[in-house]
Amino acid sequence: MAEKIGDLIIIGNGDTSEYALRAIVSLRGLSENEVVVIKGRGEFIEKAIDVYNEMKARMGESLKLVKVNIGSERVGRRIFPYIEIKVKI
Amino acid sequence: MAEKIGDLIIIGNGDTSEYALRAIVSLRGLSENEVVVIKGRGEFIEKAIDVYNEMKARMGESLKLVKVNIGSERVGRRIFPYIEIKVKI
Repeated sequence: MAEKIGDLIIIGNGDTSEYALRAIVSLRGLSENEVVVIKGRGEFIEKAIDVYNEMKARMGESLKLVKVNIGSERVGRRIFPYIEIKVKI
Repeated sequence: MAEKIGDLIIIGNGDTSEYALRAIVSLRGLSENEVVVIKGRGEFIEKAIDVYNEMKARMGESLKLVKVNIGSERVGRRIFPYIEIKVKI
């Protein structure tokens, strides 16, 4: 619960591999107690999990899945489902 | 970690509300230590979270989110990302 957000990567139209690499670079710079958050809303939820899976395939056991949050939130006038994937090394 | 699967609901082409109602009915019949698992693969991951959000909107605080698992798995010849949402009351 006490983890701090070291970096927040919001998934959009970019390449899965680019997001995965960005997240891996961010992980290297984390302080203790910090996590990288991979967040996807609506149609990008599936891709957020793809990003995690690609990181896991590259990093293996050194990647720790801290927590997965799900829910819904308003963005502008619409309400979207979201996922937040918190990872650390 | 010790929770048993009381019911597994695999999300597909059905209505979000029907899955949510099915899960709510299942929750009522759970034994202690059992959870209902809402599982979505690939394109149905977003809908699995929609189902959870609809249950949460209907049930409020009485719905407990136990754990969210993510990963990838082989189904036939293809590998799919998946989400498993474990809930109880």
